[in-house]
Amino acid sequence: MAKPKKQPRPKAETPKGFRDYFGAEVTERGDMLAKIAAVYHRYGFEALESSAVETVEALGKFLPDVDRPNEGVFAWQEADDDGRGDWLALRYDLTAPLARVYAQHRNDLPTPYRRFAMGPVWRNEKPGPGRFRQFYQCDADTVGAPSVAADAEICAMLADTLEEVGIPRGDYLIRVNNRKVLNGVLEAMGLEDDTQKDAVLRTIDKFDKVGEAGVRELLGAGRKDQSGAFIDGVGLTPEQAEPVLAFLTSKGTDNAATLANLRAAVGEAAIGAEGVDELSEIANLLEAQGYGPDRIVIDPSVVRGLGYYTGPVFEAELTFEITDEKGRPRQFGSVAGGGRYDDLVKRFTGQAVPATGVSIGVDRLLAALRATGRVGGQAEGPVVVTVMDRARMADYQAMVARLRQAGIRAEVYLGNPKNFGNQLKYADRRGSPAAVIAGSDEFERGVVQIKDLVLGAQIAETATLDEWKERPSQFECTLDDMVERVRAIVDGEA
Amino acid sequence: MAKPKKQPRPKAETPKGFRDYFGAEVTERGDMLAKIAAVYHRYGFEALESSAVETVEALGKFLPDVDRPNEGVFAWQEADDDGRGDWLALRYDLTAPLARVYAQHRNDLPTPYRRFAMGPVWRNEKPGPGRFRQFYQCDADTVGAPSVAADAEICAMLADTLEEVGIPRGDYLIRVNNRKVLNGVLEAMGLEDDTQKDAVLRTIDKFDKVGEAGVRELLGAGRKDQSGAFIDGVGLTPEQAEPVLAFLTSKGTDNAATLANLRAAVGEAAIGAEGVDELSEIANLLEAQGYGPDRIVIDPSVVRGLGYYTGPVFEAELTFEITDEKGRPRQFGSVAGGGRYDDLVKRFTGQAVPATGVSIGVDRLLAALRATGRVGGQAEGPVVVTVMDRARMADYQAMVARLRQAGIRAEVYLGNPKNFGNQLKYADRRGSPAAVIAGSDEFERGVVQIKDLVLGAQIAETATLDEWKERPSQFECTLDDMVERVRAIVDGEA
Repeated sequence: MAKPKKQPRPKAETPKGFRDYFGAEVTERGDMLAKIAAVYHRYGFEALESSAVETVEALGKFLPDVDRPNEGVFAWQEADDDGRGDWLALRYDLTAPLARVYAQHRNDLPTPYRRFAMGPVWRNEKPGPGRFRQFYQCDADTVGAPSVAADAEICAMLADTLEEVGIPRGDYLIRVNNRKVLNGVLEAMGLEDDTQKDAVLRTIDKFDKVGEAGVRELLGAGRKDQSGAFIDGVGLTPEQAEPVLAFLTSKGTDNAATLANLRAAVGEAAIGAEGVDELSEIANLLEAQGYGPDRIVIDPSVVRGLGYYTGPVFEAELTFEITDEKGRPRQFGSVAGGGRYDDLVKRFTGQAVPATGVSIGVDRLLAALRATGRVGGQAEGPVVVTVMDRARMADYQAMVARLRQAGIRAEVYLGNPKNFGNQLKYADRRGSPAAVIAGSDEFERGVVQIKDLVLGAQIAETATLDEWKERPSQFECTLDDMVERVRAIVDGEA
Repeated sequence: MAKPKKQPRPKAETPKGFRDYFGAEVTERGDMLAKIAAVYHRYGFEALESSAVETVEALGKFLPDVDRPNEGVFAWQEADDDGRGDWLALRYDLTAPLARVYAQHRNDLPTPYRRFAMGPVWRNEKPGPGRFRQFYQCDADTVGAPSVAADAEICAMLADTLEEVGIPRGDYLIRVNNRKVLNGVLEAMGLEDDTQKDAVLRTIDKFDKVGEAGVRELLGAGRKDQSGAFIDGVGLTPEQAEPVLAFLTSKGTDNAATLANLRAAVGEAAIGAEGVDELSEIANLLEAQGYGPDRIVIDPSVVRGLGYYTGPVFEAELTFEITDEKGRPRQFGSVAGGGRYDDLVKRFTGQAVPATGVSIGVDRLLAALRATGRVGGQAEGPVVVTVMDRARMADYQAMVARLRQAGIRAEVYLGNPKNFGNQLKYADRRGSPAAVIAGSDEFERGVVQIKDLVLGAQIAETATLDEWKERPSQFECTLDDMVERVRAIVDGEA
């Protein structure tokens, strides 16, 4: 008889491009999202948690008649009775599910419908350093409000949100632009050919990267990029390209000056004038609520994703400098962006529904808060009650229960207590502020030893051998005083 | 030329068995989980958020050599360069990922490792009424602690957790049993045949459903079930079956009596005596911390999942009555369960690692809190600032900003303002406590009208036409008094 084949041990690994989050990584993100949710709630937005799984049909980008539609999304086919069910997929953002939810539940939802959503999304892309295939998004959108008052509201809310999570006024700037102004510029240029229009749009999208001179070259004959490769240009004459450059560089010393420049750039185009009017109205609405251009400003150089949006677009930037991995100072950059998109629900219902919204880059904002010391830093490990005498476990448990009932984070050491050094190493690894020690002698006398590990760590860094020997970081107190003495250490008052 | 085929509109539907959660459904669950997390944190447990996607190999239940291993899980095959990549799947619980995480990161994690995890899991099962294919789990586990002190700690933490979320003492009971005691009973019965052993185990698992008499029949000749079908029995003689029934019914008037009955039931079996000793130690540890049998009690009738666990098992029950859908009172029942399982990590590393943990049924606990009015109830819709004059939008926005800055949830009506009735209907649908109204007359005089919608709803239920006409629920105040007058309504002091 053949031996049964021995199964090899499975590998203990996350799939490529996925990762786990531990301890403070989880709780700090949760705390930040809770603060954001509180602001959104105050603005009248309602929480929505849609299912992580959607039909590929509803997600829309991918068609079920492709044999394996897994480009960009994680998708699989349901096994129904005929063996050929719907294609399902993990959501790749929170906007496509919003469109599906709104179309499905529109009769039960208020109009306008303000909602926020927070949660993981999944992308079936090649993972890279710092690039994961599962990450958090945090969105707020208003569906069914055609007025730019809805866009202005989102900008104001974004400013409040950044301040709420810990970015002080002056350290951020929300820049607002309008896709209609750009359309006006294209119209004023007299571009008729759609291919050429698209080429101009793609070039404008590169403004952030290549700057004014680069855009000028790319609109004209072309440009050598950093690698030395030559990128063909759109082929416009310098005169033809001028309105685009006027548009991109029309930021003035204040909103009024910028608006005047933009009005000039769009010339006679009606759509462009409409866009400028909208920007003017947004600025007025925000001024009336106290959001001046020091916080929210009209800035035509905001070009990201212009192709996707149909009206106002906005982007939040952190303006303070951080030190990058090579030790050079650089601006932190964008942490949120959004705008108006009016065609999303139409796919389902045939009716256009106006919508506008913002998405916060959760990981980037959290990184900014960490980089500036506004999140994290101090350890908040538990107090560890060590085990000197295994038979006394009930007493140790009673001690730790006392600490917890006083609201102090605490635990009994539950590993093998034989080697006491291991218990202190464990406390160290846990970032414990204090260890409580009691053996038969202490129990007899109704006292405990308390080791101040915060002070101990400070002494370890600076003390001489003699100072070490005095061990001032360890002291004795009565069992009844234990809670208060430990609390003093935890609160940094020892 | 053939006409391009017109794409039909996609259906706006969640996939079968999935659902969306709106507003309070999301925030109430979030609030409950935050309270649970605070208790777990106080006990020294660390948050862990593992990826939602695992390799099928790591999940373990399903083998990659099956063509489509989607039984029970949602799985798909990665497209690598050869077109044949790893099979990936959505996690079906939080325990299998914990085993993978511990095996992967064990050198960087403290031992013992206490962790909690909260989040959605996915099951590829036939959906039914109230049965969804995505739902929340909330687990706490201690890995690497062999002592039953770890099991006792989990039970104490579970009691604290239930009280923290709003279940008062007396309304819950945590029942503790031990798989080793059952093994002792089987040994005492002298059952050698594994098939017969398994049949006895399966029968014991039915104790909750069929009761003592039913188990007696099923251990013997067999039993007619409710549908009239005859279920074959295990075929034991009444004498052989006696120890099993003694075990299941050994609960005494106090823990000491129960332990004495169990000691008798296991006879000479060493493993059984070990199990009884462990239960005795758990009871002592809990008593020392103040958790008496009114909260945590030894109860041998806890049999669920005994096959999976290797030592202590526990289950939390809510003991108060609710009214079921047919109007009959019934006990609410189980909301959490867990126990010791020592073989999970071994699959990866070859080394057995002791582990114990608990899983809270998030939806059931939330339903219990709602059923008893401890969660939900009062509306907390936003104050709605209505729009009488579209040209005054900046003024309305300034008013709403004032309310928000005072911490009051508020929004401007952003739908079409033409029909004022629609604005009040909107406020009603939003559950607004108050509407603020201002037209050109009010702006001229520096006042606003405030409609108390809470009072209005009360009047609408009880008032006569004359009372209606007086409209006492609407009043005028100065713009400067608006915040305080609205706050009085929101706080229920108007």
